[in-house]
Amino acid sequence: MASQEIETLAQALARLPGFGPRSARRAVLHLMKRREAAMLPLLRALEAVNERLSTCDMCGNVDTSNPCTVCADPRRDVRALCVVEEVSDLWALDRSRLFPGKFHVLGGRLSALEGVRPEDLSIDKLLRRVEAGGIDEVVLAMNATLEGQTTAHYIAERLERFPVRLTQLAHGLPVGGELDYLDEGTLAQALRARRPVS
Amino acid sequence: MASQEIETLAQALARLPGFGPRSARRAVLHLMKRREAAMLPLLRALEAVNERLSTCDMCGNVDTSNPCTVCADPRRDVRALCVVEEVSDLWALDRSRLFPGKFHVLGGRLSALEGVRPEDLSIDKLLRRVEAGGIDEVVLAMNATLEGQTTAHYIAERLERFPVRLTQLAHGLPVGGELDYLDEGTLAQALRARRPVS
Repeated sequence: MASQEIETLAQALARLPGFGPRSARRAVLHLMKRREAAMLPLLRALEAVNERLSTCDMCGNVDTSNPCTVCADPRRDVRALCVVEEVSDLWALDRSRLFPGKFHVLGGRLSALEGVRPEDLSIDKLLRRVEAGGIDEVVLAMNATLEGQTTAHYIAERLERFPVRLTQLAHGLPVGGELDYLDEGTLAQALRARRPVS
Repeated sequence: MASQEIETLAQALARLPGFGPRSARRAVLHLMKRREAAMLPLLRALEAVNERLSTCDMCGNVDTSNPCTVCADPRRDVRALCVVEEVSDLWALDRSRLFPGKFHVLGGRLSALEGVRPEDLSIDKLLRRVEAGGIDEVVLAMNATLEGQTTAHYIAERLERFPVRLTQLAHGLPVGGELDYLDEGTLAQALRARRPVS
């Protein structure tokens, strides 16, 4: 029905997360009907990102510059370093703008099941960053999953010999969370870490 | 946080139907992490479509060729013509592959509210196509809305003087529709058009 080029574009869009064949087709139509307002800006933006895409040698973030925008930002507190599993975690934490320091992306998590070992992650690089000095606190911001916590434990052990404060994200009720709908693990964590009413 | 290029790309994606700021950001990350498998194919596909994009002079479809793939298809039955409001309607009907004929896209619907008059739609072109002869049946496949049906009525009147059979899509229960959840208008149509059990 539609030409090969259009089918190819629909398929490329359908592979994006959050898109399926139907919504991709709708998006293609949207782009074709609004060439100036939608198709060209998207094309130019993709070209620009594709041209400059690189992985930051310092922290492992993906960005259009190297060192990345975060590492190159002089207003960041170099004494605080937040370690995350994936680039998406860095973005999620940075979106909140609550962490004033720099980041380190491991590129995954330890997993016996998937055969991910310490040397597959950017852990040695992390150690070298900490060893180089100037860092007071390392926040281990792994996911609250078994593998994430195993990874945090492992890194904590490797960092023990350095004079840095090791912290991790608090576990407990998510904002808006209703007890009735939360799993026992979360409730147990929230109860164990209960605080005096201030 | 992210560079200007990445923000621009996220914004361009966020304007696609079915996408918001959050899913667009996820898609950008997906593209950046899979340059070869996702970013480049999408970029190439967009370039190809953008380069060849055109509106079919015959039927009003948007495609990468002119006349469009549908109009140029020699296996189509030229004696049946299906009139639709928008290109998206053409695509939706053609996806089902149930209609063997050709299409005509009006480019909208008559609307007093939005100030859309007959001369704003591709109606004269439709009349010229029918006048040229060779067409036995014209299917008025307007939306089942007030404006769609007004448009269908208007076009039916304009086509009266030609020796063609005018038909319209059946109205009634959608497949899977439960009476309890359907509006009165649909139920009334389904009842009025009831058929003997075969």
